[in-house]
Amino acid sequence: MIGRLNHVAIVVPDLEAAARTYRDTLGATVSGAVDLPDHGVTTVFVELPNTKIELLHPLGEDSPIAKFLEKNASGGMHHVCYEVEDILAARDKLVAEGARILGDGEPKTGAHGKPVLFLHPKDFCGTLVEIEEV
Amino acid sequence: MIGRLNHVAIVVPDLEAAARTYRDTLGATVSGAVDLPDHGVTTVFVELPNTKIELLHPLGEDSPIAKFLEKNASGGMHHVCYEVEDILAARDKLVAEGARILGDGEPKTGAHGKPVLFLHPKDFCGTLVEIEEV
Repeated sequence: MIGRLNHVAIVVPDLEAAARTYRDTLGATVSGAVDLPDHGVTTVFVELPNTKIELLHPLGEDSPIAKFLEKNASGGMHHVCYEVEDILAARDKLVAEGARILGDGEPKTGAHGKPVLFLHPKDFCGTLVEIEEV
Repeated sequence: MIGRLNHVAIVVPDLEAAARTYRDTLGATVSGAVDLPDHGVTTVFVELPNTKIELLHPLGEDSPIAKFLEKNASGGMHHVCYEVEDILAARDKLVAEGARILGDGEPKTGAHGKPVLFLHPKDFCGTLVEIEEV
């Protein structure tokens, strides 16, 4: 069912410093900062030859990653995103297998403008998993 | 400097259950379990079209991931591995930029039989980073 690893998301306390680390220290290709107010994050995309790293920083009062940063002051890996062809078929299979979908179970429009769902970390080896229809 | 994302490593409390989750629930291609006694881990490789997920479980008394599992009983994302062309040149550039290399600074033979180094999480957004020469 799952296809490519679309991205790994890393929450960071200082987006400019993180972008510098990836650009100057690790020598990667890094985008400018992009505000995504609907998602409560500002993001910098690190383009690798085969996938992306997304550096995330909280934006606004109710950012969904604010608590993560409180618990992990230095930042840390937040989630992995796997691509699926049909998000509703994927959801139905996941639910049939006993996996829990976060929220109301209906796909939302993700940071790339495509339908996404988040899956419960306890059902996936302690890892928050996003699936994105591509 | 960094090239492809070689893998994301996820430490899991139950390797068989984790392999089932990735194979049956997520529908991915999953290897059998491989003991790597020199590295203190047993690993299952999840083959995605563009990269790999490595599911890791402690092996033996002095496994380097035993403490991580004590702190994260459900498991969790442990590190990301980026490919580099020349690990000594990469190390020298990282050190010149002020990044800390774990251990004695000399590359070790990693789980894939290639030279690897691990970088200090505090210098890389709270994320343990492995670099592997390919």
